[in-house]
Order: sequence, then structure tokens, then C-alpha cells
Amino acid sequence: MNFASDNVMGATTPVLEALVRANAGAEAAYGADAVTARIEQRFSEIFEREAAVFLVPTGTAANALALAAAVPPWGLCLCHCEAHVIDDECGAPEFFTHGAKLAGLPGVGGKLAPTTVADYLAGLPSSVKQMPPSALSIAQVTEGGLVYGLDEIAALAQLCHARGLKLHVDGARFANALVALGCTPAEMTWKAGVDILSFGATKNGCLAAEAIVAFDSDLARSLAYRRKRAGHLLSKGRFLAAQFEGYFAADHWLDNARHANAMARRLSAELTALHGVRLAWPCEANEMFVILPRAMDQALKGAGAVYHPWSDKSLAEGDTIGASETLIRLVTSFATRPGDVERFVEVARGAAGREAAA
Amino acid sequence: MNFASDNVMGATTPVLEALVRANAGAEAAYGADAVTARIEQRFSEIFEREAAVFLVPTGTAANALALAAAVPPWGLCLCHCEAHVIDDECGAPEFFTHGAKLAGLPGVGGKLAPTTVADYLAGLPSSVKQMPPSALSIAQVTEGGLVYGLDEIAALAQLCHARGLKLHVDGARFANALVALGCTPAEMTWKAGVDILSFGATKNGCLAAEAIVAFDSDLARSLAYRRKRAGHLLSKGRFLAAQFEGYFAADHWLDNARHANAMARRLSAELTALHGVRLAWPCEANEMFVILPRAMDQALKGAGAVYHPWSDKSLAEGDTIGASETLIRLVTSFATRPGDVERFVEVARGAAGREAAA
Amino acid sequence: MNFASDNVMGATTPVLEALVRANAGAEAAYGADAVTARIEQRFSEIFEREAAVFLVPTGTAANALALAAAVPPWGLCLCHCEAHVIDDECGAPEFFTHGAKLAGLPGVGGKLAPTTVADYLAGLPSSVKQMPPSALSIAQVTEGGLVYGLDEIAALAQLCHARGLKLHVDGARFANALVALGCTPAEMTWKAGVDILSFGATKNGCLAAEAIVAFDSDLARSLAYRRKRAGHLLSKGRFLAAQFEGYFAADHWLDNARHANAMARRLSAELTALHGVRLAWPCEANEMFVILPRAMDQALKGAGAVYHPWSDKSLAEGDTIGASETLIRLVTSFATRPGDVERFVEVARGAAGREAAA
Amino acid sequence: MNFASDNVMGATTPVLEALVRANAGAEAAYGADAVTARIEQRFSEIFEREAAVFLVPTGTAANALALAAAVPPWGLCLCHCEAHVIDDECGAPEFFTHGAKLAGLPGVGGKLAPTTVADYLAGLPSSVKQMPPSALSIAQVTEGGLVYGLDEIAALAQLCHARGLKLHVDGARFANALVALGCTPAEMTWKAGVDILSFGATKNGCLAAEAIVAFDSDLARSLAYRRKRAGHLLSKGRFLAAQFEGYFAADHWLDNARHANAMARRLSAELTALHGVRLAWPCEANEMFVILPRAMDQALKGAGAVYHPWSDKSLAEGDTIGASETLIRLVTSFATRPGDVERFVEVARGAAGREAAA
Repeated sequence: MNFASDNVMGATTPVLEALVRANAGAEAAYGADAVTARIEQRFSEIFEREAAVFLVPTGTAANALALAAAVPPWGLCLCHCEAHVIDDECGAPEFFTHGAKLAGLPGVGGKLAPTTVADYLAGLPSSVKQMPPSALSIAQVTEGGLVYGLDEIAALAQLCHARGLKLHVDGARFANALVALGCTPAEMTWKAGVDILSFGATKNGCLAAEAIVAFDSDLARSLAYRRKRAGHLLSKGRFLAAQFEGYFAADHWLDNARHANAMARRLSAELTALHGVRLAWPCEANEMFVILPRAMDQALKGAGAVYHPWSDKSLAEGDTIGASETLIRLVTSFATRPGDVERFVEVARGAAGREAAA
Repeated sequence: MNFASDNVMGATTPVLEALVRANAGAEAAYGADAVTARIEQRFSEIFEREAAVFLVPTGTAANALALAAAVPPWGLCLCHCEAHVIDDECGAPEFFTHGAKLAGLPGVGGKLAPTTVADYLAGLPSSVKQMPPSALSIAQVTEGGLVYGLDEIAALAQLCHARGLKLHVDGARFANALVALGCTPAEMTWKAGVDILSFGATKNGCLAAEAIVAFDSDLARSLAYRRKRAGHLLSKGRFLAAQFEGYFAADHWLDNARHANAMARRLSAELTALHGVRLAWPCEANEMFVILPRAMDQALKGAGAVYHPWSDKSLAEGDTIGASETLIRLVTSFATRPGDVERFVEVARGAAGREAAA
Repeated sequence: MNFASDNVMGATTPVLEALVRANAGAEAAYGADAVTARIEQRFSEIFEREAAVFLVPTGTAANALALAAAVPPWGLCLCHCEAHVIDDECGAPEFFTHGAKLAGLPGVGGKLAPTTVADYLAGLPSSVKQMPPSALSIAQVTEGGLVYGLDEIAALAQLCHARGLKLHVDGARFANALVALGCTPAEMTWKAGVDILSFGATKNGCLAAEAIVAFDSDLARSLAYRRKRAGHLLSKGRFLAAQFEGYFAADHWLDNARHANAMARRLSAELTALHGVRLAWPCEANEMFVILPRAMDQALKGAGAVYHPWSDKSLAEGDTIGASETLIRLVTSFATRPGDVERFVEVARGAAGREAAA
Repeated sequence: MNFASDNVMGATTPVLEALVRANAGAEAAYGADAVTARIEQRFSEIFEREAAVFLVPTGTAANALALAAAVPPWGLCLCHCEAHVIDDECGAPEFFTHGAKLAGLPGVGGKLAPTTVADYLAGLPSSVKQMPPSALSIAQVTEGGLVYGLDEIAALAQLCHARGLKLHVDGARFANALVALGCTPAEMTWKAGVDILSFGATKNGCLAAEAIVAFDSDLARSLAYRRKRAGHLLSKGRFLAAQFEGYFAADHWLDNARHANAMARRLSAELTALHGVRLAWPCEANEMFVILPRAMDQALKGAGAVYHPWSDKSLAEGDTIGASETLIRLVTSFATRPGDVERFVEVARGAAGREAAA
């Protein structure tokens, strides 16, 4: 019953098999190999257009490199105030951008409204003392597990481009959002106005494989140098590319995401049917943020469930956590088994019953 | 017949098997897993002392992070003028150190003599305009395939410490040097005065696995933050550690290095027996730098041999490459087969014969 | 009637005369001159102890260099959410620290309460993803014109040191705070626990002269290199030092500050006596933040008064600006003449009268 | 008899008078004042075209900011191996560029030949491991006191532009070069292909005043932010601009430079007439590099002459310093008096006589 994150499980069998398959024979080093070439081509097919693709081993690298391409050292990057890039990467964006600033804006469930962004921009002084706003970074799925609709992305993109900002998407859970929306990768990105994307694959079944996909060719220009200089160009580059071969083959990535999302839907449906349990905001992909009685939280932990407590910073205005309640995050993944869900719900139900009886 | 580098081959079977083995079950993310804990302990055993160990996926990251720990942004780092860190990493040390400077000193075959270092240091002005020398970085094996003796390392370390410099070793080919010297890892590092080490494993059989080993605890302090912030802390950290499990088990790493070195010895012995062929400097590990007739170079390439031409910058004074000669680098690895060596020599012999006959 | 800032006026006559006096003859360059040596000694006398002093031409440089000495590239620096360092320097701290992050905390009138700081620190996760808090930067006078009492500084210092943070003071208006408290420079700094100080002189009568005063010798170590490398070591260093000679002679600096504060007291007293005018928070040094009717604001501007509108972000909870009101900042200086104050008040009084009559 | 540098003297009377004149009245801060506006306009007249002008207090700032505008963090900047930017600024270019690399090339007397630059560029690998060459920085006057001819600048510019490099000129002694060539500022810069210039005024009579002049509007774009963020935008900006008012009025700057150059010509002519004294290379502006007997060096120092010993690194091939000789640098300035020259020559002549007699 480990719902701590979608990175607590290993890789899937197809991904591992592709890795082993790619091992044979000599290949040119530093990304000049045939496997990498195939995958770069595959990305273009998936996104239905030419795009510059840069494979890297971690999401932190993907995000920070993408932001560095979009934001000058003296620039400002807007994001949600609980975004991964601002809170969880020990300042990686600041390191890779050489000192740009991240400005965190509020939004329920990690989602930014266009008016929030527009108002913030309107309030900035136009003076050399002010770092000029250069990019907006949103997460799809958001830090709170919400999924931006295509029109919501397009509205943010339009606002960004009208004011000279680039739009970056942190797609650590790209596939989960994609199957949630039931749209194409192209529709969820460049067709909606996204300029540069961190395409995550690690959380959804790979060992350590992410990609920066730059739709704006200006943003692509510096990335080969930036990646090399940051130590993120693997000498045996085939091993990064091979993971994507296994990942993309036969819609494996989409199947993984569909499974994770389905497990989340089931888990949230069963939990919210219990007395005293509610969601902080809707469960739209493979995460849910659950407000539950403290006694239930204790019972679950006592039964060996693993998950993280969460901050109440992005609750809707007026919504609060009661003194006897707590807010937790549950994440499902490609590896979540129905049995894990059932056991978790059973323990919760038991606690709910005791509480109702008390 | 690919002698281009020791990173053109994939990983060994024991390493891949360890990776697959580590895949099962849930593990804490970001290096808090059990596999990583075991490997950090294993490093302490191998080096016969406590040491801070930071696993990273690339050698560029290992070198640049290690140097960033040792050299402040305004500091000077000495190295050989053809060192990997100064020539081949697109400025990674400059990026990670936030703008420190690398000063390249001369030395035959990539090896630095203590007098060269001492004279350079003595010639620096003691003024605030001068970036203060803060570290010396040497490569073991050197860029020219030479191996520093234990006394040579100790002499450099003593000189460094007397002048307040830290000694860093780029051990991309650590195992090849180790078996060449027939000493222990402790003897080749901290017992000789090394402060911080880039411990390479990728070239010698892993997919993408290197470690920074900090013997000086002052240098260790910042590295956890630096690694995270550089995107080199893997979320599924077990996969980095697992490679080392396969690598270290049953002296696999030493066997790999012994094989590579043996192949190099055989290849260099057979080549230098041919008319018109000589070594630029001795072959001491798994690389050789061969001066050969241009006609032989053409014949080898025509037969499908793959290798790189090399610079004559580190030849001994007075030694020169003739107009009809060229200098090449040949690298053997754990995967080099005797048959590759034989075929290469055969082609070379044919060309030598034709030349002698002409 | 220019109350826009204390940097809109030039320098005082004693400062200019000292500059001209220092011009004669040859002097060693780059701060090795006799004038600089005298001034460094003078700082020690003024602060009643040895301290490392680094003269620089701007307050931005003083603040950013001081913070760079106290906060590593991966560190977090706390400050007020409207602090000059976070809002008005185009990211200078981020540039000089190589990417550290500033966290802005709330506080009425720009003043931080120890509980605000303590609560924020307590809420930070202890994880490598979190940039470690390394310093607190407060402004004395605050951005809102308030003056920290000695006990308030000591409480913040104690809290900082208990948690391993350094305490930096942005003393752009150091003299104004000093005469407001009637204490000694030592009492307001190191005796209260301040580790490093930006000592401003430009706003209070110099042309361009600030000093970093490091009481913590660890923090001093890197500053000579950092200053040189940032281009803030003047070649004709005597001109920087000479300004301080004029500034410190015969308590000129204290007289300037006393005058500015007296003008502020008079202006705020007369304004708040008018109908519809109140202070956002007390006037304690040479700035006042005035909430006044929009009609009065228009009348003042119409009469040629120059000043800046201000943000309502640091009002006390519950306090608001009415629809017919506006919040402005007025700053007095060494050069403010009683006549300016009188004319300003007269215009305001006229507008207040018209309003009361309406 | 201080010939140590042209920054050992203070400022000229016209410059100081302009400073005092600019002191009166209130002015907008941060470079928005009327004096700065006038001076920016004046630069356009002097250079006969629109150009973006950024006033800064030091030459280090001017050079480092100009290079940061021209070279990305991963770029390579070529310069002479003894250039001020590579040797004397404690890594300021590395700091401001965020880790770019300076490559030092050889050249007699500090002057770079086009073939040297072209050969170096041709030898660079075209690989992502190689930092891409992005700019060439030359000094006019060179570190060795030579003056590039207009055709020499044009040849370097053409070569740079053909290969995508920007051409930067470090004009710390711009006026000295200008009067030596007898050409216009436009001819010596943008008409010859210069993209960005550090225009020095401090050494030639100001207190602390330099300007970055960007002829390439692409390079100008970031500089306002970079300057602010580096703490080089003065709050009382008028004092920087005022120095230039005094400097430019009535050809004062050209007169200063002509005087300095004339003093240098006289000093070098008289010295080289002495037995055992020769120039390392021609004296073309206000510096001379003199090879003289050690006994004469002792006599001069004994008589109170002040100057620096110099490196023999940029001597012509085959030229060497004898065991009884030494190489020194002598610099004249606007403040050098004929009497200083005479006394210096007299002491030298005495020593030469004793030597000839011995």
C-alpha cells in the first residue's frame, strides 16, 4: 500500500527489455547513436511535427534546462506558488538560469487562472529594477493533481505570447493528463500554444528518462550546449533512448497512464463514499488530495500504508481543514494493483465505521 | 574493430542483471532506498574508510560537482592543458563552479610533473586581481593513457596541501589505473593525499554510473545540495546503485579492467613490432597513442577500423610527427575481443609490408 | 518640493570638498592608497572593534556582495516581502549569490517579527529538495520607514544564530536609524548580533559611497575577491574613501540624518493634523507613508510636488485604503528645506479645507 | 617620478569642476537625470551615429558587461594571452558571463594577428563538447602599449563576422590610441567593424567613469538589466555623467591623451639613446616596455622612481632578456610633467655612464 509517489516503483518489463535489447554491439557515444536518432524521430511522429528533442535522465534537469532556454538570468518566471520547480528542486531553475527568479502565484489545486497571471503581470512596475517577466511554467498534471483543459492552456498561452512570455509545461505526468483529456499530444501542447515541454516518462514506467521537447526553435538553439555542460548528455546515450523505445511501443505509455488514472478514480470514489472523507479538489488524473479524520490517518499508517501529508495552501478560499482532520496526497501508478486499493479502502472503511459508531 | 573509446560498448551482463534484480518492489525515492544505502557502505569497504559518496549518472557531472566542491567561483583550478575537464565538457566545470577558471599546464602524455605545478604557482602574482589557486585536478589514467605512480600522486598532493590547494582525481578510468599499479583503492587515493575523486564505472562496464567520493569532509558538505540542484539526484535512485552492485560483485570491475589493459598491451606490442610504427609515449593502461604511416592509417580505416586522430600537443620535447605520419588513439575495453585485436594488427601488418616493399 | 527619495539630491559641500582635497598627488591604485587605509581605520573606531570594511560605489553592490558572502548558491535568504533586495535590484542578490533564493515574509511597515521568521523556518521541510535557510536580511530603516529597536534586532539575531543563519542589515538609511534610536553604531549592529552590514552613505550626503562592514570574519574572507570580480574595486580608490572622510568629519553624517528626521517629523505632524490624512504606520526616521484623499494628492501634484505612490501590501491587518484615498511615500533628506515642508503642507491644507467644506 | 600606471593620479580640474557643477538641485535617480541624457546624446555625436551607451564606474565592469552581452555562458571568447580581461580582473568576465571561457592567444606586444585568430578557430573541433567561439576581445591600446591600425581592426572584424563572432574592444586607453592614429572615434570603431566598445575615461583624467558603447543593437538589449543587477547603475547617476561633461568639453580628453603620448615619446626617445637600453617593441601611445640593465633599474628605484616589472611572454620570437637585464613598463599620463621625465632620464643616464665606464 505505497501511495507515496509514482516514483517509488521500478520500471516496467517492456522498458527493461528494450534496455537490454539496446545493449548489443558498438554505438557512437554522446547521443550520436542509432537508438537516439530513432527516438528523436519517434517524438516528431507523436507530436505530428518537427521538434527539437533533448533526452535527459531526470525531471529536474528537463525542467531546469527548459526554463534556462526560456528565461534569461535577469528574467522572471511565473509559476504556481506550490509548483515543483519552485518548491522541490533545491533551486535547480535558479542554478540553470544563472539566477532568474521564480514568482509563485496562487490557484486552487495548483492550477493557475489566466486572470491571476494577467493581474500579476499588470501589477509589475516597468522599470529596470524589475526583472522582466519572461516565461510562465505550468504543470500538466498540476501539483494538486488537476488537469488543464485545452482551452485553459490556450488561454494562458495567448496571454503569455501577447506579453512576450514563453509558455513552459512541466509534464512530469504528461501521459496521465493526456489520457485524462483524451486528446493528442499535439493538441495538448503546440496546438494550444505551448513553447517548450518537459516530457516525463520516469514516473510512468521508465527507470530515468525524460525529454525536453522544444516547439519554438529559438528555444532549442542553446539546449545542446546547456545539456552537455550540465552533465546531462549521457556517453552511452542509447540507454536513455532505449527506455523510450520500450515506453512508446504498442501504446505502452498510454496503457500505463490509463491504469494509474483508473486506480485513482476507483480509490477516490470509494474513499469519498466514507463518512468524514472528502477531496480537497477533484481527482482528475492519478493523484488525489484527501481530507480525512486524523483517526483514519492513524489507522491507515498503522496498517502500513505509505503516503505524504500535504499543505493546505491551495485549498479553495473559505475551505479549511478541521482540527480533527488532516490533508494527505495519494498517488497511483502503472504498478498500483487493485488489491492495494481494496486493502487501503478497507482499512479506511474500518476507521470510518468506528468513528461513526463513536 | 571499434577502438574509438571505451564508451562505445554497452554494459556487461552482471551489471544489467543487477539492474533488473533491483527493479522489484517499492523503494523510497531520491536515493533514500536500500540499494543506495548498501552501495554507499560498499564504497567505504572498498576504500577502507568512511567517505561521503554521491552517485551520479555521468562523468561530466562527477567531475564538475567535485570541482565545484573544491574551487570557489573566484578560484583557479590547475589541470593538464589537454585534460578532459578543460577540453571536452563544454565548460561544465565553469558552470558548476559558477565561473572558476581552469589553467592548463603542459606535460608529456597528459601527466603533470610537480615542478611544472610548483613553478606555475610560484609565478602567480599575489594580488586580488589574481584568482587564487584552489585545486589541482589530475586524471588517473591521464588523457594520454599514462598512469601516475603512487609516489607521483603523493608528491603532487604534498605540494597542493602545502599551498592550500585540494587534489582532485578524475578517475574515469580508475579501475584501469588500479590494476595497472596493482595497489589498493585506498593507496591510490586518500593514502596518497587525494581529497576528492571522480570514480568512473561507465567506461568499464556500466550503463551510466559514476560516483563522487569525498575523503575531505569539508568538501562533502555542499555536495548533496549541489547534486540535487544540478538534476543529478535520480528519483528512482536504486537504478544507479544497482549498477554498482553488479559492477563490484566478485571483482567484476577489476576483471573488466584487467581484460581491457591486457588487450591494450597485446595490441601495442604487436603494432610497435611493425616497421614505421611507434608509440608517442608508453601504453600503461587501456589506451595507446600510436604514430603510424599515413598509408597504414588509410588501410586501417578502409578495413573498417574505428578510432580517433589525436593531437601532438603532449609529445615529448623534440619529438615530432613526420609529414607521412599521423598520430592516433586506440582504446580497448572490457568488451574488446582478441579477434578484434588480431584483425587490426593484420591489416596494419599488411600495410607495413607494402610500405617496406615500396 | 521633491520628496521622491533621498537620492534625488546631490552631495553635501563637506563631502565634495573632501573629494577635491583627496585629488592631489599620486596614490597607489585599487584601494591600496592612504585615504582608503585611513577610512578603514575610521570605521573600526566608529564601530569600536576590528571589522573588515569594503567600500563600494552603490547600495545594490553592498547588499548583493554582503548576501553573497552569507548565502551559498543553494541557500535561502529570508527578508521582508517588500524588501529592497527582493523587489528593487533586478535580481542582484540572485546574480551575486549565483542563484540563491530570497523568501519574502510579511510584516507591517516592512518590519519582520521574530515569530514570523520562526514560524516560517519551522514550516520548511528538512530535505535536500529544500534550499537550506542561510541568512536573514532586514532593513534598518525598514522599507516602510520603521526603525527596529535594539531588542528587536537582538531577538532576530538570537533566532538566526540558533538556527545557523547569518543576520544581514541593509543600512541604506543607517544614520537615520541611528539618530532615531540615539544609540551607538556598535549597539545597533554587532552588539545586537548583526553579522554583516551594508552601511549606506549615498542617500545621506555622499555622491556614491557605501561600505560593507563584516563583523563575522568568516564572511569577510571572500569579499575582496568578490568585490574585484564584480567590478566594484575602484582603480582610483581614494575617491570612494574621500567621500567618507567628508562624511564622517565633525559628525557631519549624524547632523545630516538628524536634519532629515526632523524634517520628516515636522512634515508628518503637520499632515496628520489635517482632515482625512493619516499615516499607514508611524514615522520613525526620514520617511512617512501617508494615506490621504485623492483630491489632495491631485492638488499636491498639481502644485509640483514630487513623490511616489506606494503599495498597501504591508498595512496592518484590517487596515484598508478607501476608494477615495491613496497611499504615498514622502522622503526627507539632508537637503530638505523647511520651506519645502511648509509649502507642501500649505497645499495639502488647502485641499483638506476644500474637502471639509464640500 | 611615478610611472606605475595612468591610474595613480587623481582627476583633472575640468572634470572635478563639472562634477561640482552637476551637484546643484534635484535630479531623477538611477540614470534618468538630465546630465546623463545629455551625455548619451554627446556619445552619439562623437561616434557619428546612434549607439546604446551605458555609463559605469569601472573598467572591469565595462569589459565584463560588454563581454556578457556578446558571449553566452557556454561560449568561448578569444583574447590575447596577457589581456587585462584574462589576467587582471579576478575572473570578472567569467562572473558576468556566467562561466564563459577566455582563450588566450599569443602575439608580440599584446597584439593579435588575424592569422593567429584564424588558425586557432580552424583548430577547434565542431562538437558539443567544444564551447562555441562567440567573441574576440582586443585591447586598443594593447596590453603591450601597441596601437592596432584601422586596417588591422577591420581585418579582425571581417574574420570575426565571417565566423559568427562579435568584436569587442577594451578601450581603457581609447583616447591614447585615437590621437596616436589621428583618426575619428567612428573610424576606429564601428566603421572598422567593432561591435561593442569599453570606452575608458578614468585613466585619462576622470575619477571613475567608463562607458559601454554598443554599436550592435542586439548586444545592447540586455545591458540595462545586466548593469542594474550588477550594481553598476548609480542612484545619483548625474555624478557619472558629469565626469564625461568635463572630459569631453573643449577636446579636453584629446588634449590629455596627446600630452600623455608626447611624454611617452620623449621618455622612450631619451632612454633608448642610452647605452644598454632598448624597447621590447615600439612605443606607440603612452606606455613603453623597456629592457634595461639591472644596475640601472636599481639606480632608478633608489632614486624613487615607481614602475612595474613586466613579463617577457610577449617578446618577439628569438628576442630574450639577458641575465643582467630586466624588462619594465613605464606609463605616462595627462598628469606627467616634463620634469618627471627629465629626472628619470637623468638618473638612467647616470647609471648608463657608470656601466659604460665599468
